[in-house]
Amino acid sequence: MSLIVQKYGGTSMGDPQRIKVVAERLLQTQRQGNSVVGVVSAMSGVTDSLLRLAKEVSSKPLERELDMLLATGEQTTSALTAMAIEALGGRAISMTGAQAGIVTNTFYTKAKINRIFPQQILSFLHEGFIVIVAGFQGETSEGEITTLGRGGSDLTAIALASALQAHECQIFTDVDGVFTCDPRLVPQAKKIDLLAYEEMLEMASSGSKVMQSRAVEFAKKFNVPFEVGHSFKTIPGTRVQEESPGMEQVVVRGISVERNQAKVTITNVPDHPGYAASIFSAIAEAHLIIDVIVQDVSAYGTTNISFTLSNEELDKMGDLLEQIVQSIGAGEVRKESGIAKLSVVGIGMRTHSGVAAKLFECLAQGGINIQMISTSEIKIAVIIDEKNIQQAAELTHQAFGLDQ
Amino acid sequence: MSLIVQKYGGTSMGDPQRIKVVAERLLQTQRQGNSVVGVVSAMSGVTDSLLRLAKEVSSKPLERELDMLLATGEQTTSALTAMAIEALGGRAISMTGAQAGIVTNTFYTKAKINRIFPQQILSFLHEGFIVIVAGFQGETSEGEITTLGRGGSDLTAIALASALQAHECQIFTDVDGVFTCDPRLVPQAKKIDLLAYEEMLEMASSGSKVMQSRAVEFAKKFNVPFEVGHSFKTIPGTRVQEESPGMEQVVVRGISVERNQAKVTITNVPDHPGYAASIFSAIAEAHLIIDVIVQDVSAYGTTNISFTLSNEELDKMGDLLEQIVQSIGAGEVRKESGIAKLSVVGIGMRTHSGVAAKLFECLAQGGINIQMISTSEIKIAVIIDEKNIQQAAELTHQAFGLDQ
Repeated sequence: MSLIVQKYGGTSMGDPQRIKVVAERLLQTQRQGNSVVGVVSAMSGVTDSLLRLAKEVSSKPLERELDMLLATGEQTTSALTAMAIEALGGRAISMTGAQAGIVTNTFYTKAKINRIFPQQILSFLHEGFIVIVAGFQGETSEGEITTLGRGGSDLTAIALASALQAHECQIFTDVDGVFTCDPRLVPQAKKIDLLAYEEMLEMASSGSKVMQSRAVEFAKKFNVPFEVGHSFKTIPGTRVQEESPGMEQVVVRGISVERNQAKVTITNVPDHPGYAASIFSAIAEAHLIIDVIVQDVSAYGTTNISFTLSNEELDKMGDLLEQIVQSIGAGEVRKESGIAKLSVVGIGMRTHSGVAAKLFECLAQGGINIQMISTSEIKIAVIIDEKNIQQAAELTHQAFGLDQ
Repeated sequence: MSLIVQKYGGTSMGDPQRIKVVAERLLQTQRQGNSVVGVVSAMSGVTDSLLRLAKEVSSKPLERELDMLLATGEQTTSALTAMAIEALGGRAISMTGAQAGIVTNTFYTKAKINRIFPQQILSFLHEGFIVIVAGFQGETSEGEITTLGRGGSDLTAIALASALQAHECQIFTDVDGVFTCDPRLVPQAKKIDLLAYEEMLEMASSGSKVMQSRAVEFAKKFNVPFEVGHSFKTIPGTRVQEESPGMEQVVVRGISVERNQAKVTITNVPDHPGYAASIFSAIAEAHLIIDVIVQDVSAYGTTNISFTLSNEELDKMGDLLEQIVQSIGAGEVRKESGIAKLSVVGIGMRTHSGVAAKLFECLAQGGINIQMISTSEIKIAVIIDEKNIQQAAELTHQAFGLDQ
């Protein structure tokens, strides 16, 4: 008998009708001879409306109280899913993160899982129950409710699969799997059958928002293979697992696109040690998230430092940058929105040279100007004008043979 | 320094604006030099919409899962209230029933409180926090979430006041207190300043739905005096406490009215021991709640048995009564809706005779026919046609001098 963990996202929990379909699927999985744990997200939109409520009573709600508030969303769907399974003639029991034995640290709103005590779940599985765990949440060792950050139900599923030594972990969502590129941009995009954790990580963090990055990191760290697929389809999704030798034969696995980005340039930063650090410390202290950073070659004792971030984060910056510029005696701040990031991702890059050249050449042929470049071992990312992004994605997709 | 428990009902939690007003009141109470525990209900309407969701996924949801589901309503408002207090510059912390140390038995949806471990609350109070407890809920000793039945937040407040040995327990709601009669029926009705637990109990269970009866019973059992008042007004409400000698001087304290009642008569029930019992056992087994029962004087070896119940309960009876009639060989079932119950309540009745006579006389003068009569030590109730209820209430209110 196999133990299977299935996670269902917010759109799969969107209304009672969908919850009944999910219940049917969980029950079917059990009837095929498996022990089944379901991890459920809140109904789509619920987390946002709870956050709106919080904003209406407090401009800066305490994070402990936010977690107390937000955890109710998944508790609700876990109970509804268990009821729906029982209504179909199955046996099911819902559990909060705390009841499921998920112990976290005390970093409210983005807690880390310290340990999982799976005894309670295992004993219910043993009695033949389908166990439905409220995703996205845990409890500190003091009994305080915590949440695991946006998309945290993915992490709940992966971590439970690891603690329960599950045979399968299936992440069900509203897409068929991970694609070679966003099909809305590139209609020729194809579903990827097999991905290495590292590739999934780059795809996840570079805009293919299929899954929470922290969940993928956790899966990589503890080697928990999983599959990403569609909640309401039975076709196979994308399998994500440890890198294997055969995987390197594909040089570029997929193209990830991130829109709605902005670029900030600080000019004439005095070229002294520690000045760049002071810029980015101030940004980090304000909990703002930036992405690509580029520093020009120094000339005449000063340098220009540029970085990208989402438009949303740019809005949050307020006059922080002006303060920084003043404090370090730099030139001025230039802000530019309407840019986008395109990344080509693949483990095969490590052993194949020429990927960067091919990418730049292909963009040049399309007359697309590259504003910034950033690379990692298995990824090359370019920042371009947002209006060129579709053309760039199509050209690149074709150039690396992802259509075939 | 006094310890005060304040409970706020669902309409006081109706929207973020109201929650802010409640937060202000809790904070003010603390600033007057008190330790403050707030007990909050779910936002009005939330419990019902959760129940609707449950009904959509299951025609007969498991009670354990219902409790898991319903408990989220109060968890939500407890977090929002704590946030609102912090936003006003106070210090507050929210707690689920479980975190507040409320341990119940396992009778899901109507659990009884077994014990309260108040150490956690006391230690937060000691640190200067206003503690906001999610009402209506507790936890079994196994860590399962339970709820205390409709209006259970009242019970949470009274039980916490008892466990914490609070100096004051204030039940805030959307009325100014308990009235001599429903002011919508009798505009001359006056707020009652002081009531004995027993009187409150009769008023609560006879239709003055200001508070949950079980909460009043608990208050009586453990002698927890409390006050019922308006969430958004500072005028004194109704104080409820142990009976004191002076209280008996008022013969009738108030008049309680219950509308939307129905009457069922089973004719020609064979006059053998055990037949009446078998009728009411069958009704009890079906979890139907009936109120007044009257049996005619037996004649020719058979008798008629009548009882009242709410219209709602009558709808739930289905063909249960026909089955009973058949099984005991009785005559027929007559159902009649459109009746109402009027009760006069007062501890003084015990020592004053003539209350019944005065009531009947006053109704007779109004030409109002009495269909059934039921009495307790401190209450006389009559069943009359619903169309006469306003006239009956006004006549009685005047006859017993409650207008003065």
